[in-house]
Amino acid sequence: MNPVRVGVIGVGNMGAYHAKQLAANKITGAVLTAICDAVEEKKEWVSKELGSNIAFFTNENELFQSGLIDAVIIATPHYSHPSLAIEAFKHELHVLIEKPAGVYTKQVRQMNEAAQQSGKVFSIMYNQRTNPLYQKLRDLIQSGELGEVRRTNWIITNWYRSQSYYDSGAWRATWAGEGGGVLINQDPHQLDLWQWSIGMMPTRVRAFCRFGHYRDIEVEDDVTAYVEYANGASGVFITTTGEAPGTNRFEVSGDRGKVVIENDKMTFWRLRTPEPEFNQTFKGAFGAPECWKCDIPIHGQMTGHDGIMMDWVKCIQHGTPLLAPGEEGIHGLTLSNAMLLSTWTDNWVDLPIDEELFLSELNQRIETSRYQKPKAEATSGTVDMSKTFG
Amino acid sequence: MNPVRVGVIGVGNMGAYHAKQLAANKITGAVLTAICDAVEEKKEWVSKELGSNIAFFTNENELFQSGLIDAVIIATPHYSHPSLAIEAFKHELHVLIEKPAGVYTKQVRQMNEAAQQSGKVFSIMYNQRTNPLYQKLRDLIQSGELGEVRRTNWIITNWYRSQSYYDSGAWRATWAGEGGGVLINQDPHQLDLWQWSIGMMPTRVRAFCRFGHYRDIEVEDDVTAYVEYANGASGVFITTTGEAPGTNRFEVSGDRGKVVIENDKMTFWRLRTPEPEFNQTFKGAFGAPECWKCDIPIHGQMTGHDGIMMDWVKCIQHGTPLLAPGEEGIHGLTLSNAMLLSTWTDNWVDLPIDEELFLSELNQRIETSRYQKPKAEATSGTVDMSKTFG
Repeated sequence: MNPVRVGVIGVGNMGAYHAKQLAANKITGAVLTAICDAVEEKKEWVSKELGSNIAFFTNENELFQSGLIDAVIIATPHYSHPSLAIEAFKHELHVLIEKPAGVYTKQVRQMNEAAQQSGKVFSIMYNQRTNPLYQKLRDLIQSGELGEVRRTNWIITNWYRSQSYYDSGAWRATWAGEGGGVLINQDPHQLDLWQWSIGMMPTRVRAFCRFGHYRDIEVEDDVTAYVEYANGASGVFITTTGEAPGTNRFEVSGDRGKVVIENDKMTFWRLRTPEPEFNQTFKGAFGAPECWKCDIPIHGQMTGHDGIMMDWVKCIQHGTPLLAPGEEGIHGLTLSNAMLLSTWTDNWVDLPIDEELFLSELNQRIETSRYQKPKAEATSGTVDMSKTFG
Repeated sequence: MNPVRVGVIGVGNMGAYHAKQLAANKITGAVLTAICDAVEEKKEWVSKELGSNIAFFTNENELFQSGLIDAVIIATPHYSHPSLAIEAFKHELHVLIEKPAGVYTKQVRQMNEAAQQSGKVFSIMYNQRTNPLYQKLRDLIQSGELGEVRRTNWIITNWYRSQSYYDSGAWRATWAGEGGGVLINQDPHQLDLWQWSIGMMPTRVRAFCRFGHYRDIEVEDDVTAYVEYANGASGVFITTTGEAPGTNRFEVSGDRGKVVIENDKMTFWRLRTPEPEFNQTFKGAFGAPECWKCDIPIHGQMTGHDGIMMDWVKCIQHGTPLLAPGEEGIHGLTLSNAMLLSTWTDNWVDLPIDEELFLSELNQRIETSRYQKPKAEATSGTVDMSKTFG
């Protein structure tokens, strides 16, 4: 079988990592054939680091029309993910986009529709779905071990970022440059895992975002969100870039006990009798179901970005199911859009959100944003992201 | 010095415990002289368990006018705490009330004013304030070790109660009988410690109470509350009686690190450099203050109910400062009232709350309550509360 010929758009930050892995033949079944980056000077880097045989384009249309690629990885700034993906689908290319799926759901929905129409393989870089911890949580819930979910609680406050981080790029933490703060930049994985692991999206959201609370930025750097689910469960999501050392603790309780993921470990407090059954039969005043504290073994390794790339290539070649279908990127984005919209309207937001209202509110903020997009911005960026992998 | 002559009103549940400790001379400086309980049949129990020399009254006015007591412990159902305390202050008695201070803040404020006017010693049974864990947290914050508080997060969901518990008393979990659910019955200690340990009350509250969510009851059994403080900090309080095994985890982060109390242990993640200082001097893109994980030693024993009684008696005899001044009972109650009011109005509640609005909302619910108060209800109740101590 011929290898899948892959192009990468955007080799600042993550894109450079993906390109290097491809060029080093670390992604089974794939071969890197082309790079596209708006920054002309990257051509030399590509030739030196990736190989002189790799074609280089500064314009994505040239890449799409080159005939050199079967598939494309889009690793540009957030705003351009959907528009580039839509173009790529038009050119009958398979697509893998970096997270987040986009900045607002209207555009992401359009991307999903384009993907559907193309029939091409569409994936998103939700590399945390390869983490055996969250796969195990999904397993415990899908298999019924935890029972019906009653409460979710994720405190994800260990995203410390200094002012100097925000000052390192004029586009950072601006409405015009990134379209949001901690929710759009740091949290996409957790927002995805929050719904993917339990297999449920909330039905409504009431959130409290604080903008420039800890840093001199215009977007949110501190968020508390309360959500309700159709089955009666509730949930809380707390995040910030302003705390040190912060916490990463995910608790899910169900009617058969409670699971906590913290410090890369999973503990399951398992009820011997499911709670509803205990409640029906118990006749005393004080008493609770017998509970066993179980350390859950976690097998397997997190294959990360490489794993997602290989999964995508395998699907292209063999039609195997995707771990991270691109269409599912809209879920996490819906949650982050809903949290902003709830804060802006100081009210509940029902899901699916009013995508036009969100976009209009966002556009108002883009108009007065301190950041004005330069022409070549779409694919530039040189900060070392190695420490943000994971 | 003459011992303080103490009477106890209400010897169902907690009152019986307090009376026994007094009768057994376990409370230094105090002597039990009288009991008041509306249930005539308790006279025999008093004589047998507490001593034939203990006077027995079925009417509190007779007790107040008996000349047999200098001080009174009020351990009746919630609603009657303020009115009995106000009467006692009129009779120039020192007062120790069981928690909660009352059911609505208007009445509790009136009680506080009566206490002030009387000049008598007024305390509240916040026995958890004697817990060295929370005393240590208060110490770390008062001494500046944790720095300025930025976030509080208390998940207190280990209050499991079965339907049979609620069915064990017709007054339980009713608006007319208790005036609330998990907030008024199970959480008073945590609501007090939440503000006492950090030394701050919120300025506004947005809460989500769910009524009869897990059980066939009319009051709240599931609550998530978001709060904001004057210094810019935020907080979350989550509680329920419907989960097993539930969680009791209190996290407080400040600009010098983070403290977590869980499983009766305290861990302090201490920043070597305070975060604001690090942020001002750090110039890299990714980096965070150096952090030390410290296990904090907890010395001393929780003296509990006896400790609060002795502290009260000591203050009566020697004028020493109270650990749990009765006037402070209004703080925790304000929080629980605010959470209900926020839910009822589906909106923010600013503190101090609109006490008239709360009372009018509560009265609407009392009018349609499934429970109708029997005449002698005020001081009855026989469920074994020994398992709810702590």
